Amino acid sequence: MALIVQKYGGTSMGSVERIEHVARKVAGFRQQGHQVVVVVSAMSGETDRLLKLAKSISPRGNPREFDQIAATGEQASIALLALSLEKCGVAAKSYTGWQVPIKTDSAHMKARIQDIDGSRLRADLDAGIVPVVAGFQGIDESSGSVSTLGRGGSDTTGVALAAALKADECQIYTDVDGVYTTDPRVEPKARRLDKITFEEMLELASLGSKVLQIRSVEFAGKYKVPLRVLSTFVDGPGTLITLEESTVEDALISGIAFNRDEAQLTVAGVPDRPGIAAAILGPIGDANVEVDMIVQNVGADGTTDFTYTVHRNDFDRALEISRKLAGELGAKGVNTATDIVKVSLVGVGMRSHAGIASKMFTALAGAGINIRMISTSEIKVSVVIEEMYLELAVRTLHKAFGLEQAPSVA
Amino acid sequence: MALIVQKYGGTSMGSVERIEHVARKVAGFRQQGHQVVVVVSAMSGETDRLLKLAKSISPRGNPREFDQIAATGEQASIALLALSLEKCGVAAKSYTGWQVPIKTDSAHMKARIQDIDGSRLRADLDAGIVPVVAGFQGIDESSGSVSTLGRGGSDTTGVALAAALKADECQIYTDVDGVYTTDPRVEPKARRLDKITFEEMLELASLGSKVLQIRSVEFAGKYKVPLRVLSTFVDGPGTLITLEESTVEDALISGIAFNRDEAQLTVAGVPDRPGIAAAILGPIGDANVEVDMIVQNVGADGTTDFTYTVHRNDFDRALEISRKLAGELGAKGVNTATDIVKVSLVGVGMRSHAGIASKMFTALAGAGINIRMISTSEIKVSVVIEEMYLELAVRTLHKAFGLEQAPSVA
Repeated sequence: MALIVQKYGGTSMGSVERIEHVARKVAGFRQQGHQVVVVVSAMSGETDRLLKLAKSISPRGNPREFDQIAATGEQASIALLALSLEKCGVAAKSYTGWQVPIKTDSAHMKARIQDIDGSRLRADLDAGIVPVVAGFQGIDESSGSVSTLGRGGSDTTGVALAAALKADECQIYTDVDGVYTTDPRVEPKARRLDKITFEEMLELASLGSKVLQIRSVEFAGKYKVPLRVLSTFVDGPGTLITLEESTVEDALISGIAFNRDEAQLTVAGVPDRPGIAAAILGPIGDANVEVDMIVQNVGADGTTDFTYTVHRNDFDRALEISRKLAGELGAKGVNTATDIVKVSLVGVGMRSHAGIASKMFTALAGAGINIRMISTSEIKVSVVIEEMYLELAVRTLHKAFGLEQAPSVA
Repeated sequence: MALIVQKYGGTSMGSVERIEHVARKVAGFRQQGHQVVVVVSAMSGETDRLLKLAKSISPRGNPREFDQIAATGEQASIALLALSLEKCGVAAKSYTGWQVPIKTDSAHMKARIQDIDGSRLRADLDAGIVPVVAGFQGIDESSGSVSTLGRGGSDTTGVALAAALKADECQIYTDVDGVYTTDPRVEPKARRLDKITFEEMLELASLGSKVLQIRSVEFAGKYKVPLRVLSTFVDGPGTLITLEESTVEDALISGIAFNRDEAQLTVAGVPDRPGIAAAILGPIGDANVEVDMIVQNVGADGTTDFTYTVHRNDFDRALEISRKLAGELGAKGVNTATDIVKVSLVGVGMRSHAGIASKMFTALAGAGINIRMISTSEIKVSVVIEEMYLELAVRTLHKAFGLEQAPSVA
């Protein structure tokens, strides 16, 4: 008998029929003798509908009131699932964030969980009751206000509850059946991974694999909560995100991530002196533009080219600021590209294998793909290429690193 | 400067435009220097939508979960109004039932308010903030569960808050501009009353004038909260429900109420012995059928006819039970009528005027209307007549008692 926290997202809760499907799944786990805590999101589309209503009145109104209205989406879905579980013969009880309580800080719309009092949930579990907890929300105890954790916050709620209750596993149910070596829509030979490390998952999540919300992965890693991604609709083992440093699959590379929403800006011919990076990025940060890659090569003739990428939505703002700066700094000008993408190889195995990057560049060159920028970390290599080569690059790398086949056990 | 509690119903909150209209009204009161607490219902149709969703899963599920989902309707509307007020330059803060807190008993879906802690709202008022409170809901502190007060409960919330805060007036905004001498759709000459006593309002409310929820009127009378009914959409003084025993308008009759949903059952030829009324009504009550009028005349030849009326929805059930009983009691049979209505004259003035009833019967006879049943209380006379005569009866009585003209001040 294990204690399992299961999180079901908005798609899994998208209709009465789907809620009843979730109830039957939970009932199945109860019948196997497991203790289950369920965390749910709002029915799909509901949070958007509510926030749209609020924004139609006041686009930049008091975030406290946005949270007050947004939190109703989960409050409805927990009640519906509790009713559905009882209909399946499973004793259940719904909990809003404040009823648990899940205590957060005061940062409305992006609150962070500070503490969870698990005593009520534990009493329910001991009494054979399945607690159904609203994801995404909590209470700011200093003011008594309802808070929300921001998009994808239900994953974080699930992981935080699993940590607080010392659960054996946190299962995140979604509409895909696990984490893949890359996006199967781009490379049909993409393969589901049985296991992946937290670090790899973090890199994959931040690089555009939208399976798990990044903060929940950090949280799970920090509190050592075994995390599993599974499909609500198709039975299977899913992908376990594991604490083990080296996985049984002793692969060099776990997966290929990519991000289509990049735009590149290069401040060319900047005087090469200390503080220049800060001088360029400071105003960008002040304008709340998030910078992704940053590349600066060693300069020649006393100047250097400083390149960074941003989300395409922020491109116009970043360009305006950079042009102004270029003038002030005496740079030659600003070059840009918006038809670019980032492709990244991720794997803990590359730490000890120097050849990964060069193998990657060779494979891309062999396919005639020009690399515009390169950036590396301990467990990933990212390149920026022209958007038209994205699919070709992903398939080329997937094949070059043999990702379509599971590595043989060492 | 007065402290006013204003309650706006679902129709007043029915759209973003209407919510903004309400915000402007509240802003107007603030500009006049008044302190305002606003109580709102869910946007019209929302509570029904939510309960329908819950019922589609489990028609008779745990009432706690029904309350959990139903309460989200008001939680959304308080946030929307608070945002709208801030947009109008009025500092505002939304409160769910548990945030006030409004403490209730544990009777889910029909909870009663037990205590209101007004300290947070008072602090807001002192700071120039308009608290926007969710109607219809509270918290059962013994379990920490969300509770709801049942249909029309937002009126009760408004009155209870006014009592707790010792407000100068509780204003109930609705889609009519006050209480009328009778339904203007039936008698176009119906006149808005400037004042009416609580007792009269109670009789009018219970007899079918759906302006105010009956429990809120009882509550207002008990806690001596001056109550005013006004229109959200048309400016005007509305109708004040007053504590004064005799109003300035020293009228005999305040209004004419009627109820179309009556059905009559007569158990004929029942042996006339003690306990017979209980024997007939006991099983009806056990079946959760609410009985309205009860008439039993003195018997002749050792038997009597026992007549009662029920809501038409309950007619079939009542008939089945009564037929069974008639057999057991040795009665002659059960006669019924479903095409009947009840028309009632209401007025505190009739206490001291014996002639009201006979004047009523004379007027109806003059119009050729046959009276099937009569029932009287201290401040009302009700008759049951055939449904086809309803409009004629109301207009005849309205004229006979001179209700189209305001009485001259004594």
